[in-house]
Formats: sequence, C-alpha cells, structure tokens
Amino acid sequence: MFDWKPVLYVIGHLLLVLAGGMVFPALVDAAEGNRDWQNFAASVAITCAAGAILIASSHAPRIRLDRRQGFVLTTLAWVAMSGFGALPFLFSDVVSGYPNAFFEAVSGFTTTGSTIMVGLDQMPPGILLWRSILQWLGGIGIIAMAVAMLPFLGVGGMQLFRMESSDRSDKAVPRARQLAASLFAIYVAASALCALAYWALGMTFFEAVCHAMTTIATGGYSTTDSSFGKFDSPALHWTATLFMLVGAFPFVLYLNALRGRPGELFGNAQVRGYIILVGCAVLAAALWIWLTRDIALPKALTLAAFNVVSVVTTTGYASADYMEWGNFAIMLFLVLTFIGGCAGSTSGGIKYYRLHILADYVIKRIRQLPYPSSVSPSSYDGRPLSPDIRLAIATFFFLYVVTVGAIAFLLALFEIDFLTSLSAAATAVGNVGPGLGPIIGPAGNFASLPDAVKWILSFGMLLGRLELFTVIVLFSRAFWRS
Amino acid sequence: MFDWKPVLYVIGHLLLVLAGGMVFPALVDAAEGNRDWQNFAASVAITCAAGAILIASSHAPRIRLDRRQGFVLTTLAWVAMSGFGALPFLFSDVVSGYPNAFFEAVSGFTTTGSTIMVGLDQMPPGILLWRSILQWLGGIGIIAMAVAMLPFLGVGGMQLFRMESSDRSDKAVPRARQLAASLFAIYVAASALCALAYWALGMTFFEAVCHAMTTIATGGYSTTDSSFGKFDSPALHWTATLFMLVGAFPFVLYLNALRGRPGELFGNAQVRGYIILVGCAVLAAALWIWLTRDIALPKALTLAAFNVVSVVTTTGYASADYMEWGNFAIMLFLVLTFIGGCAGSTSGGIKYYRLHILADYVIKRIRQLPYPSSVSPSSYDGRPLSPDIRLAIATFFFLYVVTVGAIAFLLALFEIDFLTSLSAAATAVGNVGPGLGPIIGPAGNFASLPDAVKWILSFGMLLGRLELFTVIVLFSRAFWRS
Repeated sequence: MFDWKPVLYVIGHLLLVLAGGMVFPALVDAAEGNRDWQNFAASVAITCAAGAILIASSHAPRIRLDRRQGFVLTTLAWVAMSGFGALPFLFSDVVSGYPNAFFEAVSGFTTTGSTIMVGLDQMPPGILLWRSILQWLGGIGIIAMAVAMLPFLGVGGMQLFRMESSDRSDKAVPRARQLAASLFAIYVAASALCALAYWALGMTFFEAVCHAMTTIATGGYSTTDSSFGKFDSPALHWTATLFMLVGAFPFVLYLNALRGRPGELFGNAQVRGYIILVGCAVLAAALWIWLTRDIALPKALTLAAFNVVSVVTTTGYASADYMEWGNFAIMLFLVLTFIGGCAGSTSGGIKYYRLHILADYVIKRIRQLPYPSSVSPSSYDGRPLSPDIRLAIATFFFLYVVTVGAIAFLLALFEIDFLTSLSAAATAVGNVGPGLGPIIGPAGNFASLPDAVKWILSFGMLLGRLELFTVIVLFSRAFWRS
Repeated sequence: MFDWKPVLYVIGHLLLVLAGGMVFPALVDAAEGNRDWQNFAASVAITCAAGAILIASSHAPRIRLDRRQGFVLTTLAWVAMSGFGALPFLFSDVVSGYPNAFFEAVSGFTTTGSTIMVGLDQMPPGILLWRSILQWLGGIGIIAMAVAMLPFLGVGGMQLFRMESSDRSDKAVPRARQLAASLFAIYVAASALCALAYWALGMTFFEAVCHAMTTIATGGYSTTDSSFGKFDSPALHWTATLFMLVGAFPFVLYLNALRGRPGELFGNAQVRGYIILVGCAVLAAALWIWLTRDIALPKALTLAAFNVVSVVTTTGYASADYMEWGNFAIMLFLVLTFIGGCAGSTSGGIKYYRLHILADYVIKRIRQLPYPSSVSPSSYDGRPLSPDIRLAIATFFFLYVVTVGAIAFLLALFEIDFLTSLSAAATAVGNVGPGLGPIIGPAGNFASLPDAVKWILSFGMLLGRLELFTVIVLFSRAFWRS
C-alpha cells in the first residue's frame, strides 16, 4: 500500500506558500485600483482551501519519506503548484481557457519562460508580478530539490552530489533545515542585489523587481513583449548576463564560499569548465555577427554575451532576434538549448556537469583504447566517479535525446515545421523558453500553437525540470506494486 | 616505435583486390567500344603498382597485428581504398577535380551512397558498374571488420560480439580464414539471388547486377538519376525492400542458420526487435501518407516500406520524394537516419543493438529506481551484459550525437540551412545517402555543396563507417607514444 499521507501533507503546505505568493499581486493590483485584485483574492482562497484540506486530511506526526514517496511528492508538487498557479491567469481572462493558463503556469514554475501571452505592456501589474513570482518560487524549489531530493532518489547521476544530509537519519533533519534556510537566504540576497542593480541602471522599481526574480531563477519572463530589447543600456544587459550566470552556478558553492571556502567556488571543475564553455560560445557568436552581420564589435559582444548566456543558462530573455543572424547562429542556439547550467542551480537542460563528465570519459577511453590494461582512478570535484555513476549519466543523456526526439515527433504530427517542432521540444525539455523559427523564436510566441501541442509541451517542461526519471518512474507498473 | 610493415603489407594486398575490381568496368567499357576503358586501365596500373610497392617494401614473414596496428590498418585501409577508388572518377572527367572524385569514392566504399554525379543515365556503363563494385567491396569489408576487427579492438560496445576467433592465437587463424570465406560465400550468394530476382522482375541484366550489389551492401548507388523511381513495378520495390533488410541483418547468423541453427536467426533478440521497429515505422509512414496525402493504401504501403527500409538500413535508394509527405515524414526520416541496422551487417547508423540495449537499460533502471537494492543479471542474445559494455555503448551514443552535431555545426558555418546541415551530417555519419531538404533530399544531389563541405562530409562518412573511435583514436597523442 502506498501511503499518501506524508505526500499530501507536504503538498498542502506548499500550496499555502503558493497562496502566500498570490497575496503580493493582489496587493499591487489593489493599490493601483485595478479590479484584477479580486481574481488574485479568489485564487488565494481556493489555493488556501485546497492546502488546508490536504493538511487536515493527512496530518502525520512525523514526516519521513521513503523513495517512492519522494518520487510522487516531487512530481505531484510541481503539478499542483502549476495547476493552482494557473488560477490567476484563468480568472483574469488574460489567457483563453485552462490549457493556456496551465501552459503559462508550468512554463513559469519550471522556470522555462515560454509564453502564450501577448500585449504584456498593457497587462495589469499583478499578472506581471505573478509570472515573476511563479518563476522565483520555481527557482528556489528546484535548488531545494537538487540538493535534498534528487541525490537521494538516485536520478540521472545526481547521486554524485549526495551529501551527509541526504541520508535521512533523524540527526540529518536539523542540518537539512539549516541548509535549506541558508540557501533560501542566499537566493533572496542574490535576487535583491540583482533588483537593486537593475533599478540603479534605469529600470523602474517594478520592472527591476520582476526581472530580478526571473533572472536569478533563470526563468526569463519579462514585463514587456520585447523582453530585454526594451532596455537600450549595455550596462543593464551586462548586469543581466552576470546575474543569469549567478543563477546557473551551484548555489551550495556560494554558501561554502560565504563560510570561508571561496576556493570551492572558483576552483570547482564544474564552474571553471562552464565559464570556459560559455566564454567560447560567446566569442564564437560575437565573431560571427561581427564578421557577417556588419555589427560593431562592442555591440556584437554585448548581443552575443546576453543572448548566448540567456539561452545556455536556460533563462530565455531575448535582446535581439537572433534568427536574423544566419544559419550558424541557429545551429549554435539549438546546441545551447541542450546544455543548461550546473548541478544545483536554477538552470535546466542536460546540465553542464553531465556533458563534462561524458566528454572527459570519451577522451579517457580514446587514450586507453590502444592500451586496454591501463586503469586510472577518476573523480569529479573530489567525488569518486564510479562506472555506475558514469552509466547513470550516459543513460540520462540517451533518455534526454530520446525524449526531445519523441516530443518533436509528436509535434510534427500536427504538421508543425521541422525547426519549430525540434526547437519547441528542446526548449520545453531544457526549460529554456524561446525556440527557433518564425513562430516560437525569440521574436515569436507560443500562443498560436494548438491546445494539444501546449499540453505536450507542458508535459515536456515537467519532464525536463524533474530530470525525466522522476516523472517517468510514476508510469511504471513496478512502481505501484505493493 | 610503431611497426608499419604488417599494416602496409595488408593494405598492399587490399589495393590489389581493388585493382582487380577495376578490371570489370574496363572490360565492360571495352566490350561496348567505349574509350573510357583506358581510364580504368590506367587506374588498374596505378593501383596495382602502389599495391605491389607496398607489398615488396614491407614483406612480413607472418602477419600479427597488435591493437594499435589494428586501428591504423582499419582506418588506413578505408582511406586507401577510397583514395585509389577515386581514380576512375577523376580520369573519366565525370566529376570535376579530386575532392569530388574522393567524395564519390568514399561515399561508395563506406556504402553511404550520397552522390555528386548528375546524368547517370547518360554515363558510360563502366563508371556505373564501378560505383556498384565500390559499394559491394565496401559491404563485405565492413562485415569482415565487424566480425574480426572491432570486437578485438573494443570499439563502442562491439566487444559484446567477441568470438573465439577474435583471440588472435595461432590456432584461431585458420578458423578466422574459414569464417571469412564462408561469410564471403554467403555475401556472393545473396547478391546473386538479388540480381536474379531483379532481372526476372524486369531490370536489364546490367541494371540488375549493379543494383543487386548496392542493395546487399546497403549502399544505394543506382544506375539512374531517378534511383528506384525509374522502375514502376511494386514487385521490384518489395524485392528490393526484402534484400535491403537481408543486408541489414547480422551475416554471421545466416551462416549459423545454414549450419543447421536457424533458431539463431529467427530467435535472435536483435533481429526480432529490428523487424518490429522497422514494421512500426513502415506502418506509421504508410498510415500517414494514406491519410494525409491522398494515396491509396496499397501504394502507400509499398512507398512507405521501400523508403523507410531504404533509409533505416542506410541504403539510401529513393522511390519517391518523401520531402513532399509533410513535416511528420521529415521528422520520421531524420530519426531513421540515426538508427541503422544490426551488428555485423553492411548497414551504418548507431546500430539497432545499441539502441535496443540502451532502451532496455532505461526501462530496467526505471523499474529499479524505487527499489534500489534489487539487482538482476542481464544478457543480450545469450551474451552477458556487463556495466562496462553498457557504458561503452552509452558512450558511443553520446559521441555519435556529438559528432553529428559538430559536423552540422561546421556545415552551418558555410551558411547552409538548418535542415540541410543537420541531415547532411546525420546521413554522412550514418552512411545513409540522401539527406533532407531541397538540396540533398531524395530528389537532390550533393554536387552543389562547396568543396570544403565535401571534405567534411567525406571525413564524417569514414568516422561513421569505422564506428568513430577507430578513427578518432589515431588523433590522440597517447596513441603514438612509444
């Protein structure tokens, strides 16, 4: 028998947090005299009620989750948060129908940032704030999951990052709580810093707060249809570039750096490798647009840095329509869509550490092929790399590629063109945001896609956000066998 | 010190075989009174001379190859056969310049089948026969390599198919020779059967022989620009479909079947799985074109079976321009381009057994995730599947995807459009033949691409044919360290 109580109990509390988040847009709209505050009030009431019912009906004296409950809780939490997070969109009539509202909410809570809303500049501020809050909550949610849940569940190689606090012993709970509180404090501080910088550099206070939340969460929702293209300030763009990278690094390392171990941040193989990779991609893109698109080098660098970092960190802001930069840029941005950020960050994608470990292993195999007897021990950032972990990571890569392919396949059934199908699948599973091509590219919008496609992409975003296995395992019959 | 002697000695003999193959087109052209025979005669002379010099200068009393020599021999053999196989094209002036001649020869000898030649119907018969012979020799070459060399070199999981004859002891040599002779006999017999069937069903004798050689080799060169579209007979198309599949199954199993163990062929997990996969793809394509393209079901089935099997077996004939079948067909054919045939066949691609083993493992992991302690032993067709072999296969998959991506990237630098870049890379590395899109699609031709792109694709074909690692290992410094 599967014991639902602890799962529902935790989800009940999460819904209360979500309802708390809805209070802010209600207040903003009410303060502006905008009647939209009523929609938020209704959403708060429904979400609170649902949360309260769950908590009351499943009170558990002590929450201890086994592995199966961990999987169910993780997936259900993301579905529930998106499902209730969609209510304000639905009630406000800014989107038509629940599939659209759910798409927008999933895209928010998974920090994807694909949008079906047009005319953001004319929207009531509450809705804009709500989109940002959804991504911000989703961002801290994924950090918590990557630190506390995935290593414990053994998903896709995340067991590499297992910490003492993953062992679930009674002693570990206070430590885990303290860790969570520290990470949350860092997340708040980084967001506040980002907002202040945006404000100082010319955004309105409202814009600064909204964009800061979606920058640190590498989410990418903006308060305007033209995204960062609205802000004509290189300083703002470079600031955003920096804070998107902040969102893409492992947050635990910030904690260690603040505790007097900065070497763990800057000496970290994952962080260093990621910086080099992103640097190379920025340079390649800058050289390309400088040489082929008649754009001065400083502007080319700003454009390249902002848009490359935006896609590779899976944020998804746009400051220009890079579809106009030619076929090399299209190929580059498609590849970037797959990469993602570091482990334990707010970024999606395959994640850099997996690609790093796989590439290292390919090189190692190539070196060893002519001399099959030679064996050398391996590690990554001081953690031993067993064949099992490598296999788990390689298997994740395989499943990731197959998942993107399968979703692209499904979209093609709707006669959606090749580039749109493939990039929509990749951007959804990678939690990036914009795709490629005229429809869903950086200058486009997901609104015109059929509802069925929106459901498929919503599912893809959840799959990608929860590292595939966490969701797929629930569809296995073996899982529900008592 | 690397001992080149045995490597060059073997390559010298292979060049003599190649020169022997050139004699046939010379005879055909001479018999037809076509002066093109002189170009073949010159090619024979040069190739023979090169072979003789290699043999004379590197005579070894006994050929024993270590692993490094195995890698060098394999790669160099394919380069040399293609390099000298290009001579008749160069001398005949049917192509312009050596890059084009080399592209056509590599595409032939790797049994890819991408062509830069237009106006095949007006070509002298010798050239058409030579293209077929190149593919036919390349086909038996790859079977021999997959049986005798790759398992021994431990490339990409092929160690799974290691046989007693791979141990290179003195006793093993006669057994290996006998195995090679038996496989060659089966290859000749299958080709003859196919030619007879083609002839009986309406091809001219010349067409039947040429097409039979490129069918069994899953090569795809035709004697006409319209490929199989020229032959308006469903019986011919179904016969070709059957024999392309014959080329895509493991040839060793035919041998075992003839030796009284037919169960090994039909009870084989790889063979059964492959038939199911191909059957599903054919059905999907047939239903799609029946329902969306207003084509009667029997014709839709014939079209779907022929073209799907042609691409998935990496043959590359076309009987219709499937670019006109819509976005679902494009996506399907792109996916098929990656799959390929079985181990020890003439097909390219990732190879079905790798995908089968990886997919099985994903399912196994999903079943075991909630119960991490459960362990179950694994095997594939009676061979034990160690974590090492799984990791080797998963790593191969990763490197394959990265290689296709890297080549597509390079092509995009030449401002080649997205679908053409991606499908050209996939079709080259997969040794399929046609790509997708108006330029290199089933109705197109590789002639218009820049020379640099042709070199890149030629390299991609060699990489794919020799299972990536065999070639890449030669670029490692560790390899040449004494």
